[in-house]
Amino acid sequence: MNKTIHERLSLLRNEMSKRKIDACIIPSSDPHISEYLNECFKYRQYFSGFTGSSGTLYVTSDKAYLITDGRYFLQAEKQLDGTGISLVRAGIPGEPDIFTLCKNTLKENNTVFASGKYITAGFYKKLKELSVGCVFLIDTENDPVTPSAKDIATQKFGKIHALPFELAGKSASDKIAEIRAQMAKKSADGHIVTSLEEIAWILNLRGSDIKNTPVFFAYMYIDEKDTYLFADTDAASGVVGELSQSGVKLYDYTEFYSFISSVRPGKLLLNVSGVNFAVYSSVDKSVEIIDSTDPGMLFKAVKNETEIAYIKKMHVYDGLAVARFMHLIKNCANGEYTEITASEKLQEIRKKCPDYLCDSFDTICGYKDHAAIIHYKATPDTDIAIFKDGALLVDSGGQYNGATTDITRVFALGELEYEFKLHYTAVCCAMLRLLNAKFKSDTRPCVLDMLAREPLWKLGLDYMHGTGHGVGYMLSVHEGPCSIHYGNNAPAFRPGMIVSDEPGMYVDGKHGIRIENILLCVDDIKNEYGQFFRFESLTVAPIDLDAILPELMEQSDIDALNSYHSFVYESLSAVCNAVELEWLRHYTRPISKS
Amino acid sequence: MNKTIHERLSLLRNEMSKRKIDACIIPSSDPHISEYLNECFKYRQYFSGFTGSSGTLYVTSDKAYLITDGRYFLQAEKQLDGTGISLVRAGIPGEPDIFTLCKNTLKENNTVFASGKYITAGFYKKLKELSVGCVFLIDTENDPVTPSAKDIATQKFGKIHALPFELAGKSASDKIAEIRAQMAKKSADGHIVTSLEEIAWILNLRGSDIKNTPVFFAYMYIDEKDTYLFADTDAASGVVGELSQSGVKLYDYTEFYSFISSVRPGKLLLNVSGVNFAVYSSVDKSVEIIDSTDPGMLFKAVKNETEIAYIKKMHVYDGLAVARFMHLIKNCANGEYTEITASEKLQEIRKKCPDYLCDSFDTICGYKDHAAIIHYKATPDTDIAIFKDGALLVDSGGQYNGATTDITRVFALGELEYEFKLHYTAVCCAMLRLLNAKFKSDTRPCVLDMLAREPLWKLGLDYMHGTGHGVGYMLSVHEGPCSIHYGNNAPAFRPGMIVSDEPGMYVDGKHGIRIENILLCVDDIKNEYGQFFRFESLTVAPIDLDAILPELMEQSDIDALNSYHSFVYESLSAVCNAVELEWLRHYTRPISKS
Repeated sequence: MNKTIHERLSLLRNEMSKRKIDACIIPSSDPHISEYLNECFKYRQYFSGFTGSSGTLYVTSDKAYLITDGRYFLQAEKQLDGTGISLVRAGIPGEPDIFTLCKNTLKENNTVFASGKYITAGFYKKLKELSVGCVFLIDTENDPVTPSAKDIATQKFGKIHALPFELAGKSASDKIAEIRAQMAKKSADGHIVTSLEEIAWILNLRGSDIKNTPVFFAYMYIDEKDTYLFADTDAASGVVGELSQSGVKLYDYTEFYSFISSVRPGKLLLNVSGVNFAVYSSVDKSVEIIDSTDPGMLFKAVKNETEIAYIKKMHVYDGLAVARFMHLIKNCANGEYTEITASEKLQEIRKKCPDYLCDSFDTICGYKDHAAIIHYKATPDTDIAIFKDGALLVDSGGQYNGATTDITRVFALGELEYEFKLHYTAVCCAMLRLLNAKFKSDTRPCVLDMLAREPLWKLGLDYMHGTGHGVGYMLSVHEGPCSIHYGNNAPAFRPGMIVSDEPGMYVDGKHGIRIENILLCVDDIKNEYGQFFRFESLTVAPIDLDAILPELMEQSDIDALNSYHSFVYESLSAVCNAVELEWLRHYTRPISKS
Repeated sequence: MNKTIHERLSLLRNEMSKRKIDACIIPSSDPHISEYLNECFKYRQYFSGFTGSSGTLYVTSDKAYLITDGRYFLQAEKQLDGTGISLVRAGIPGEPDIFTLCKNTLKENNTVFASGKYITAGFYKKLKELSVGCVFLIDTENDPVTPSAKDIATQKFGKIHALPFELAGKSASDKIAEIRAQMAKKSADGHIVTSLEEIAWILNLRGSDIKNTPVFFAYMYIDEKDTYLFADTDAASGVVGELSQSGVKLYDYTEFYSFISSVRPGKLLLNVSGVNFAVYSSVDKSVEIIDSTDPGMLFKAVKNETEIAYIKKMHVYDGLAVARFMHLIKNCANGEYTEITASEKLQEIRKKCPDYLCDSFDTICGYKDHAAIIHYKATPDTDIAIFKDGALLVDSGGQYNGATTDITRVFALGELEYEFKLHYTAVCCAMLRLLNAKFKSDTRPCVLDMLAREPLWKLGLDYMHGTGHGVGYMLSVHEGPCSIHYGNNAPAFRPGMIVSDEPGMYVDGKHGIRIENILLCVDDIKNEYGQFFRFESLTVAPIDLDAILPELMEQSDIDALNSYHSFVYESLSAVCNAVELEWLRHYTRPISKS
């Protein structure tokens, strides 16, 4: 029985009852449809206790459900325990999505509330299509959620600072010009941008409004002539010069909704599934909406030469930090460190890297069976000491002046069962096969996922998460549209895109394995069969060989692993000292079948 | 300069000019949107000289284009030579599809003709969406094509015969009942079926109206109570008893269009992209159309237990026939056979199989560089003698009482270049990898294609055709919705579906390689990670080892090849004689790296 959650839900249900609302949809979102949230928008967490980055809470007068994906099943089970909230496992056959859940629980003339600021216009359209005879309320007037979350944080605005051209590689004016060219192609007269990462990228500005993601709260409007930024004017006081140089007019964050309800472009480029419903519905009815992916999103995903050069450089430092941590933990697994202090130690090591700014997400440091919780975050309650036994999974990353990194390694600390090594070897082969893919330029990422899944599927195993996500440049560690999952339809890669390659294997109560490199898509040969692409590994860190069973690997997998390790040795030897070189040589030693 | 084609096009252009028509679209189709055509519908071939099974001719007052796919590039180049018709290579980046071609060549107020009987309603919708300000004529009154094809064959109707229940495994009444259940699910009161294969399958009837595909010309209409068959009443005279037993009312083929314009179901289930426009437009405007895949198409694709048992049995005989041919041609490659006489010899061998009815398509028998023409059909002009040198590609299949088969093998006849062996080994690995796939039940076939493409892509090679197609049961050798191509979105497999696995590699002017097995999708394990599927090989015939380079294969590929050959030996040894057993043992010998 979780008292706080019960009290909060009971308060919410009181407010619902006052307003004659039968059900509430509380997504994990903010007005910018961000993945990671400022504390002031963590309503879903507030009312459920579930802290994962993804999930939707659905509350009726007597029931509550939390829908989340495979990365969070174990964590949600634990965190929902005693709350009375039922867990709905997204992606598992037979489990409902939010729309089916509505359909299953609602009666005709029921009233459902979802805040128009936290659901996308696309989501709202799908709700309406349910045609269960319900009324959907999405306006703030009827909101029972906000007034019941009395003690949630209030929105604050951190200082905005400029990214030097030297780091950005392209000026804001040039980026805006390219977006305008795309608008012209689609005959759009105006374009609304609400994604915080996109705005930061376009304007070469950064902020601190979301932990680990250096963005700032803002909206943007671009027409054929002008660019309007809506941001906290105090927060932006230090970049007024940069904005004016880029021809950007600054307005206060609060003025955005009245502004967009007053502008009247003939045709407005707007990503209906990417902007919140309040934005969508503020647009005047006379405006023709061209529903299309934001051009800026695609431009941002294809890293420019300057960005790539920095990303490569920073990954070497980041890889060395992880290698140093590896050496430390493999030799100090005597109870000296716990999951939490090991995470702190890793951060301390990373801090010594040139140009380190902060972590790019909360380190996942799971020892033994904790690693089976895919997005585990140790708390004082769960924290355990690390000994010479079992394995430690560490998924971490840094924000640098010049890169956002993300890497997962599993460190073998002592005796390991055969099953662990079998899974570890399969995951390692899976990561390497995708890394070494060579593919036609029109291959969709879902197709490439077969390479990573196959070594596990062959064994009748699988991992309940995607194989890869895009990564931002000094921005969010998760960035669209890059994505690798056999079930989705993400667009084909283009050279310059970067994506994670992170197959895994999790056995509840026993162990969890994930090996993650970040890959850069580059041109391979072009011939009569077409243009081929391949990947380069940006991640430069040893893969612990102590849990590898070479006899289970194809010769080509062994060659691939040895070749990767020789690349790691080459790259890190340029930045490490002589003592480190010794253990680095050992960690990157070539292996063979016998 | 091809005189006949010039004369025919000139006649067509005269008729176009009389009717003030600026362009004609002549697809490869019939009123049932069949892939393989009766001679009387081969208009595209008639006006272009191109004999491939797929392609669209587009004729304007002074230009003509033929659009076809990668299987036919080389053949079309040769057959279009001297006709003045330009080849458009579908699937090659930058090459237009028919819609882009229209857009590029038409001016406002131009008039374009396409016969409503040969284009689908879906195709027509796309044409209309072009919005180039053209008028599209689709009715027979304005048809310039039919009157210009003066000497094309006239439509005739072969006798329809019944498939015994013993072979069908399910009665027509039961199949119709299942379709009605699906109609009810979609709230449909009526359902039009125009696909010849589907009608034949539903009613357990077969005909002879399309060469190698035992279907008969017919339409069908199913409502909640009655089933109407529109077929030539003379042709159907022998199955009147079976029809009445299944509760099917027989009407003449010619009465269909007036019938469907007169019925008024409230909601009509109709596959808009599968029926011709004339059918679609004959439906009364008051009828609500539910656009959905025909339920019968999906039922037909999932083979029942009886069908599967027969298919397995017949494949053993078919495999033995191919093995016998293999033995013959590998030992008689002394000029005794040409491509044509070798094809005839193979047919003669197949004829000795129990329950052989006819071939399932025109045998592709290409020697040396002819094999690079993916769908090569030897003619007296191109026919060449086969010697102890190079390789022979044979893609063939049979119609049996109990199966439709399709198999491709390449026979090494003498010295072969390293490049040939490299390609052959890669293609062999590609086929085996897909055959040995183990995959989650929700994996789309496009994802599985990665397994077959990878061994070729790794070498910077590719084949310009799909990896797999569905196969009918005593019906068309190409059957939807099964399809394996990384670029498409065919639905996930279900156990009981069968699909070809036929990667290839073609070097214009040098050689062509394709190895094709037919696979059956079956259940594999179901566990906490989900339901897994795998394939079984239905095809049981040796893969010529004389062109294999084991040193280029992964150990798992070698194991897979040896395991397949031991299965072939086991299966064929049960039906062959002692002398044959000797060479069979040799052809299926295990190989190893050294």
